[in-house]
Amino acid sequence: MSRTAVDDLNNPRLGRQLMQRLDALGELSEDDAALTRRFATREHRQALELIGGWMAEAGMTTRLDDAGTLIGRYEGTSADAAALILGSHQDTVRDGGKYDGMFGIAAPIAAVDALHRAGRRLPFPIEVVTFGDEEGTRFQTTLFGSRALAGTFDMAVLEKADDDGITVGQALRDFGLAPERIPDLARDPAQVRGFLEVHIEQGPVLETAGLPVGVVTAIAGCSRLKATVTGEAGHAGTVPMDQRRDALACAAEMVLAVESHCGREDSMVGTVGRLEVHPGAINVIPAQAAFTVDLRAPDDAVRTAARDALLARLQSIADARGLAVRLNVLYEVGAATMDPRLQDALAAAVAAEGHAPRRLFSGAGHDAMAMADLCPTAMLFVRCKGGISHNPAESIEPDDAACAVRVLIRVLEGLAAA
Amino acid sequence: MSRTAVDDLNNPRLGRQLMQRLDALGELSEDDAALTRRFATREHRQALELIGGWMAEAGMTTRLDDAGTLIGRYEGTSADAAALILGSHQDTVRDGGKYDGMFGIAAPIAAVDALHRAGRRLPFPIEVVTFGDEEGTRFQTTLFGSRALAGTFDMAVLEKADDDGITVGQALRDFGLAPERIPDLARDPAQVRGFLEVHIEQGPVLETAGLPVGVVTAIAGCSRLKATVTGEAGHAGTVPMDQRRDALACAAEMVLAVESHCGREDSMVGTVGRLEVHPGAINVIPAQAAFTVDLRAPDDAVRTAARDALLARLQSIADARGLAVRLNVLYEVGAATMDPRLQDALAAAVAAEGHAPRRLFSGAGHDAMAMADLCPTAMLFVRCKGGISHNPAESIEPDDAACAVRVLIRVLEGLAAA
Repeated sequence: MSRTAVDDLNNPRLGRQLMQRLDALGELSEDDAALTRRFATREHRQALELIGGWMAEAGMTTRLDDAGTLIGRYEGTSADAAALILGSHQDTVRDGGKYDGMFGIAAPIAAVDALHRAGRRLPFPIEVVTFGDEEGTRFQTTLFGSRALAGTFDMAVLEKADDDGITVGQALRDFGLAPERIPDLARDPAQVRGFLEVHIEQGPVLETAGLPVGVVTAIAGCSRLKATVTGEAGHAGTVPMDQRRDALACAAEMVLAVESHCGREDSMVGTVGRLEVHPGAINVIPAQAAFTVDLRAPDDAVRTAARDALLARLQSIADARGLAVRLNVLYEVGAATMDPRLQDALAAAVAAEGHAPRRLFSGAGHDAMAMADLCPTAMLFVRCKGGISHNPAESIEPDDAACAVRVLIRVLEGLAAA
Repeated sequence: MSRTAVDDLNNPRLGRQLMQRLDALGELSEDDAALTRRFATREHRQALELIGGWMAEAGMTTRLDDAGTLIGRYEGTSADAAALILGSHQDTVRDGGKYDGMFGIAAPIAAVDALHRAGRRLPFPIEVVTFGDEEGTRFQTTLFGSRALAGTFDMAVLEKADDDGITVGQALRDFGLAPERIPDLARDPAQVRGFLEVHIEQGPVLETAGLPVGVVTAIAGCSRLKATVTGEAGHAGTVPMDQRRDALACAAEMVLAVESHCGREDSMVGTVGRLEVHPGAINVIPAQAAFTVDLRAPDDAVRTAARDALLARLQSIADARGLAVRLNVLYEVGAATMDPRLQDALAAAVAAEGHAPRRLFSGAGHDAMAMADLCPTAMLFVRCKGGISHNPAESIEPDDAACAVRVLIRVLEGLAAA
């Protein structure tokens, strides 16, 4: 490892500068009182100008691809070597926080900046990517730029419209891009060494464990179900308890079944996030209760077995009460396993920083999920306060931010030495 | 019992005529496609004209009081004797059925009609009342006419406005009445022998028991609670099950506690009719769940003990999960016990008709609740299909309708003989 770069990274200035940059980026919002920055907007453009400036300072050349991804490239000693790509997304949810996505852009730029200031070139080029859309806030689409690079982009997405009826394709053209050329963005796997994404954890595991960073084993697969329980409405005063077919009481039993079912597996979570009751009057026995289930696990076999067992359990709860339940699988996506070699490289770097290399799965989706289709991919999680994300209260510590950058530098140097 | 009246009542024509009258009354609606008839409307006026005609045919004199109650009076042999009052309400919920309330007007008119055609006078006058408002559909007020007679009318109600901003007082003046004189409508208890209300059951007890009619023991008291459970929102994928504070899972446990708590007592019902989840997104752990509880029992001591035990149970469920719950009592009303002597008179008449005199409590409120403050009061329930009410599917059998009228005649003759 370059001695100069390490010295510089131990400078307390690093964490402070990173936080200042993220504060500045967080000012670029469509809303005055909240941080909302959607894909292909004026604020997206402003963010790219700011980030492009940081990239240039760090010795990178920049270009914007036709999917709206800003790419900074830091050349290696060999121009032909496969590049290592690092990065994340610039967009936010409505009223979001300033670290989700953005930290995964600012951190690798800081790492490259350290190499640059030390005059250090690695044997391979480094690219830092700023994907335009991962949250899907504007077009209800997601992983836009990462799928373009991975060659898995569905051109039908270009026809999706935002709330004002503007399609993705039109928005990209208004942004000065040529969306018809997106298929040309697909990278040759032979030209990509790997992809690394740094991201806030968005959960409480690292905070609970007292660790600044952790190594992601997999991005969980997800099954989403909808259950619609149909019973019989009735007057709250006139139907004896033993003659009721109360859809909400039945659904309540099901909600607890989801909780207990998922509580048995350590590497599995299940959530009932929505529940609606009809007719929903204080004095009427509910005729219908509809709810969603979101199941996630890093192991697809665990998840699909749990899904099937849960569907059977929900059916048996309805049967036992003499109610009908309609069960639909709304959505299924498999887990993305992180590359073992890159995981080990991250773990070694975390250990070298003096921290236990905690491995954990990501329950949230990330650009790394799409990039895993292209190349070996890994993720580093950074502790965030209270596990809170998608919220203005999103918060990280400057020391943890600096630690993540040092881990990145160590991994870069480790790969260079390998 | 007058032989002529009994012969006439056994005529199958009776049930058919009653059903035809109720069909005709059910045509008087503010909506073309549904039955909605609110207080002090053109359709209320039309209903009173139709009902007034039936009353006149049955030998009654009619008058409209200043609370909008149409009163038909069938004189007895002694003009000074305390009157027996029978009746119910003419108004409906929105998109209601044609028996709730109206059967309780048509049935006693049919009974008086039978006496009239037999030339029979009882020792006391009979009054049949058509209360204007029991459902509260227009003004969110209820028991309007019955409270006026009982002397429990709150004049502040006159200031309540409908959706168009028209107050009750104005609506009554527009109807040609003098609402300021409502206090004068309070009856002298010494001049009222009792009140009898016939009503569809609005529940499935008689249908399940295979009985056409039943004797009401009490109108249940009611406690209404609101529980607001506050947990912590979180990402559905990133918070391990054992670190969650899921407001909906906690509320689900509470919903089941309401069900099991009320299921233990035969003479008690409890309903969670509303439940709302925030933020209500498929991929967010619920931060808040708010629900209502409606508890009813014919015995106030049973109900208040159950309410207190349930409140403690809900608190302990929240405590065990480390969540907060705010518990509010929204509403409390005591039970109205039906007069034992009138209950026995009804039961004897039911038995004389050849049916087991099933006693049951009313979980729904009725004008009888207000009238019980004035005089000995009782109710006869009539079987309705599927226990359905407040719905166009409300349905009764002509034979059951005729049975109810015969029971009334037997009670009238029994009281006359006593």
